[in-house]
Order: sequence, then C-alpha cells, then structure tokens
Amino acid sequence: MIVIDMLNPYDHQDAEALTASVERIVGPLADLVGRAHRREDVDLVYVNDNHGDFAAGREDIEALGRKGRRPDLVEPVLPPPGCAFLPKVRHSVFFGTALDYLLRRQGVETLVLTGQVTEQCVLYSALDGYVRHYALRVPRDCVAHIHTDLGDAALRMMERNMGADITTAARCLPSEDDR
Amino acid sequence: MIVIDMLNPYDHQDAEALTASVERIVGPLADLVGRAHRREDVDLVYVNDNHGDFAAGREDIEALGRKGRRPDLVEPVLPPPGCAFLPKVRHSVFFGTALDYLLRRQGVETLVLTGQVTEQCVLYSALDGYVRHYALRVPRDCVAHIHTDLGDAALRMMERNMGADITTAARCLPSEDDR
Amino acid sequence: MIVIDMLNPYDHQDAEALTASVERIVGPLADLVGRAHRREDVDLVYVNDNHGDFAAGREDIEALGRKGRRPDLVEPVLPPPGCAFLPKVRHSVFFGTALDYLLRRQGVETLVLTGQVTEQCVLYSALDGYVRHYALRVPRDCVAHIHTDLGDAALRMMERNMGADITTAARCLPSEDDR
Amino acid sequence: MIVIDMLNPYDHQDAEALTASVERIVGPLADLVGRAHRREDVDLVYVNDNHGDFAAGREDIEALGRKGRRPDLVEPVLPPPGCAFLPKVRHSVFFGTALDYLLRRQGVETLVLTGQVTEQCVLYSALDGYVRHYALRVPRDCVAHIHTDLGDAALRMMERNMGADITTAARCLPSEDDR
Repeated sequence: MIVIDMLNPYDHQDAEALTASVERIVGPLADLVGRAHRREDVDLVYVNDNHGDFAAGREDIEALGRKGRRPDLVEPVLPPPGCAFLPKVRHSVFFGTALDYLLRRQGVETLVLTGQVTEQCVLYSALDGYVRHYALRVPRDCVAHIHTDLGDAALRMMERNMGADITTAARCLPSEDDR
Repeated sequence: MIVIDMLNPYDHQDAEALTASVERIVGPLADLVGRAHRREDVDLVYVNDNHGDFAAGREDIEALGRKGRRPDLVEPVLPPPGCAFLPKVRHSVFFGTALDYLLRRQGVETLVLTGQVTEQCVLYSALDGYVRHYALRVPRDCVAHIHTDLGDAALRMMERNMGADITTAARCLPSEDDR
Repeated sequence: MIVIDMLNPYDHQDAEALTASVERIVGPLADLVGRAHRREDVDLVYVNDNHGDFAAGREDIEALGRKGRRPDLVEPVLPPPGCAFLPKVRHSVFFGTALDYLLRRQGVETLVLTGQVTEQCVLYSALDGYVRHYALRVPRDCVAHIHTDLGDAALRMMERNMGADITTAARCLPSEDDR
Repeated sequence: MIVIDMLNPYDHQDAEALTASVERIVGPLADLVGRAHRREDVDLVYVNDNHGDFAAGREDIEALGRKGRRPDLVEPVLPPPGCAFLPKVRHSVFFGTALDYLLRRQGVETLVLTGQVTEQCVLYSALDGYVRHYALRVPRDCVAHIHTDLGDAALRMMERNMGADITTAARCLPSEDDR
C-alpha cells in the first residue's frame, strides 16, 4: 500500500480546493494506514515529494507538513515508525525512486494507491504501475482531488483502461481470514 | 513531433469507436507529418507498439497495419523514408525506448504529440514528457480517442496540470518565418 | 542468451585489435547461437548498437555489418529469422531498450552474455543485469576484447563481484537432459 | 561532486582489505569535501547505500556508520549540513535514485566521483554517468579499493574507455580563479 504526498504544507496554488477534499479522506486513510501497518502481509510505503529539497529526509518532509497551513490534515497520517519512506522529485511515485526495486524484492503484485492528487500524482502513479504490470486497487475514500470532474475522470480511466479496482478503504485490503 | 501508434491493425476490442475518431484525424495528421518531415528544424519520430513481437522492426509493424482491417487509415500516415522509428512495448512512448535519449541528443525541448489514443497512450506519453520537463503541444485534430468524455478529460488534464498547449495541426509547428 | 554488438562494420578505431579477438570467437558463437535458437527453453535476443541511426531496424543494422570491412565476421552470426532483436543506443544492453521488460515477461532469471567488447559493452551489460538481480553466465570463448589485460580484468570483476559463472560455449546452456 | 558509500559500518566480508585503502583516502577526501562544500559552483551530493533498510534516511545511515567498526573512517567525511543526500539501493548511484534528475536540473555536466569501492560502485557509477554523457573526473587519492589489481584496472577502464580524467584531490576541482 502506497501513501502519496500526504505530507504537504498546503501552501501552493489550488490548496483550498484540495484541502476541502483531503478533509474527507484523512479519517478513513488514517484508519487504513493503521490497519496496513499492523498487517504482516501488507507492505506500507510512504512516497512523498521532497518539495525540491534534495537534502530533505523523512523528518524534514514531515516537519514541512506539520509546520504548514494544515497540520490537522498531516498529523493523523504521519508515517508509522519503521515504515518505508521514499522521497520523490516529480509526480509519479516511480520516477527517480527505488519503488519498483523495493516492490519486486518484496514480491508485491498489487498496489493499493492512496493520497493526493487523484487526477495528478495518483493517476500518474497508477499508470506507471500499470505499465509495469502491477494490479491496481484505489479506495475512492482515500484519494483527494482538486477538480471534481478531473478526479472522477481519472478514476474512470484507471478503472476502464488500467483494470484498476476502484473500491473503498473498508474493502481494499485482502481479508485477514483469507491469508 | 511524435506520431504514436498509428500503425494499427484495428482488430482489437474498442476498434470501432476508435476508427470513427481516427477517420477524422488521418487527413490533418498526414498533412502535418508531411510538413514536419520537410522541416529541418523539426524532428519527426514514430513510436509504435510492437504488438508483443520483439522480433518486429519497422517493416513488420507497417505490414501489420497495412494488412489489418483498416489499411485506409494506415497508408496515408506511414512513416516517411529515413524517419526515426522506435518500437515500444507499453503505452508510454518513453517506457523501454531510447526516446528520451534521442530527444536530449537532438536538444529537443518541446514535444508535439499526435496519434492515438488520446486518453491512453497520448495522455501517458504527455505525462512522461512532463515529468522530464519537456514542453507539450497537442493538436486536437491529430489525436484520436475511444471514449469522447475520457478523451476530453485527458486534454483538460494535459492543459491544466501539465501546461500543455492544446492547439491545432495548422498552428502546432513554429512558423517557418520565425526561424 | 544475449548476443551483443556482433553486427559491426569494424571501421572504428581499435577495430584491428578487436577483429583479432573476434576471429577466435565467431566459430564457437555461431555454433552456440544455433543451439540456443533450436532450444525452446532458451530465449535468444540480439541487442546491437544502432550506430547513431534512429531510423535503423534489423535489416539496416545487418546491412551495415555485411557491407563493412569484415563481413566474414558478421555473416556466420547473423540473427536467425524470428529472433528477438533490439537496437540499442549506448553501451549497456539495458539502457534505452525494452530488454528488462522482455526478460521479466518471459520469466528469465539467468543471462548468458556473448559478443563484444568484453571490457566495455559486455561488462556494462553484466553490471546492469547484476543490479537487477539476474544470474550471469559468460562463455569465455564467445566474448571478444580489444585489450587483453582489461578483458581479463573485466572477466575477473564479473566473477568476483557480480557472481558471474565464467564458463565456455560447450557448458553455458543448461543440459537438455535436465529439462 | 559525488561521495559514494563512505557511510559504512565496515562489518562486511572484505572489510579489512577495504579499510586499509580507506585509511589512505579519508584525509584527502575530508579536505576535498570541505572545499567542495564551500564552493558555490560545485554541487556536493552524497549517495549512500541504505543497506537494505527502506525506512532509513540520512540520520539512520550516518548512525550505522558511526556505530560501526571504524567510526574513525566515517566521522571525518560525514555530509555537511544541508548537503544533498540520496539513499541508494544497489551499486550504481544512478540506479533507483533521483541523481540524474538532480544533475540535469542543476545543469551539471561533469561528475567528480569519490568514495568506495573503486572497482565496484565507483566503476559502475562512472559507467552510468558515461552512457548519460557526463564528463568524468576521478581523484585517485579519494577512491578506495578492495583488490589492488581490479582497482587499477577499473581506473584504466574509466580513463581509456570512458574518457575519464584520472587526477588528484588537489587538481580535481576547477580553479576558483577560472570562475
């Protein structure tokens, strides 16, 4: 399970439209992160923009979010201790990161994509996962958009053209009974 | 200028919706290809799916299209002799190809994206160009879609989120007088 | 099994030192190519420099070698019909090609590297295979060098630092009885 | 200027042969790092193995080295505050990292490679830089080897086949007067 760009100072253009959507996902996502972290059969990976600072590690990127304009949207979804954390430099979680390597070493075949922005980083990451033949699962209540219409179109593209399972937080992790 | 996946046998699912759209672009695109080919300041590059055949080169891929169900949509836009031709294996023109290398060696800074499918390979290629900091130009009358709504959304995504110039065949090449 | 850069016009600097070495491998390599091609459990892939011509496909690259200074070193090792063929643009067979994608789709886990130049393209390709966790096998009588000392050092590097099995043409394919 | 893998606990196989070599470079390298850090026209980038821990950032990787068997070889070459730091997962500094992206954004054209191990990570990184058309400079007194013969061969390969300037710490940065 991948958590994308949730450590955000929300000081950019379009931040207002985005935070309105993030407000709705932060609860379900925080809960899902907790469940994923406790599961031994789920790899939880945070991939977050480094906001152009190549000296920044997890602490710095966390601090940026916590000292930003909406710490209430950041604190509940901070990465749990020991959780894999990869800084990224562009929109896709695969571009310029070791994510593909990590996933292959772990034998991961299915990606659960969460975070922001549905019609940007989430869509682009879905695509990069799809061309690499990962199965995709996107819990609709754990991804936030800026533009409602583009966010909806992005989910339809993932579903129709990338075979993604558009689902919910409640159903996106395989049942523990199935293990 | 990149021509994407126009060498197509049109025997796949969704081919009918696609060919209806391709019928409308094949004229303007053929004309644009001709102009780009004659221009010394424009690099014309065909990037086309190899349809899973790793032994296939340009001739084989051309033959596939010419012997397919709609040769009338293939013949007018065959690559001119001597034109760069890169087989690809997945949707994005950058994935598993030397395109980025070629563009950098040529000093290309702007991509003109044409071909099919607007909401799939064209969108994914636009994204991969955008994360690599190429400027994007998409002539609306030279890209074909399967689903009208998704094609429209894809163009809006490119315009709004990737800074793409959504334009027309008539205006997408820099004026020769400007050189 | 990968055949690297054997379609060569041999008109470059250092060609003389190289051809002296190629003369010794062309026999064993031609035989090995034949055996690999007949085996259903071996994927034979030619990866060859496009010599800077992005319009060149297999036929053009073959023609370059056949019309070069040493067609006698090219003809015996031409790719069999239907064999996978990937043009490359730089030294490593992985750089700017779909090779990694092809190998993963085929479920390949071991690379047999043959061709030229031991201390350049073969070494660099070995490295790129090694970081991607492929097992390596290099038949010493099927790789050609320019500098004897660097060629030897390259083989020692592959053996010591990349876990490569430095072997011979006779032993580099798994026994057909083992299948 | 790139500093490779100097944050090392030195608890692996071959560590003894390596530390004997590192002892000789740590002085010149520490001095060179200081000079590079003070220069505004030099980008100093640390790229260091994450030792398989994808949760590890700079502090964790530093701590691993400082608590290892040879903190005296680590402390003098710790990254200066604010210095770019990229964890890597395999031998080459380019594999699975944002280094190429960072270098291009900064307009870097020449790489000064330092650190360890000459015949492994340094050689492999040199190669990956070379295929991407960066000019290479390697100060011989700032790279450490495990095997003397392979280290020497690696330097000869870089010089002869990758056009690298094999130089010294004293001469590897452009004169400040030339700016």
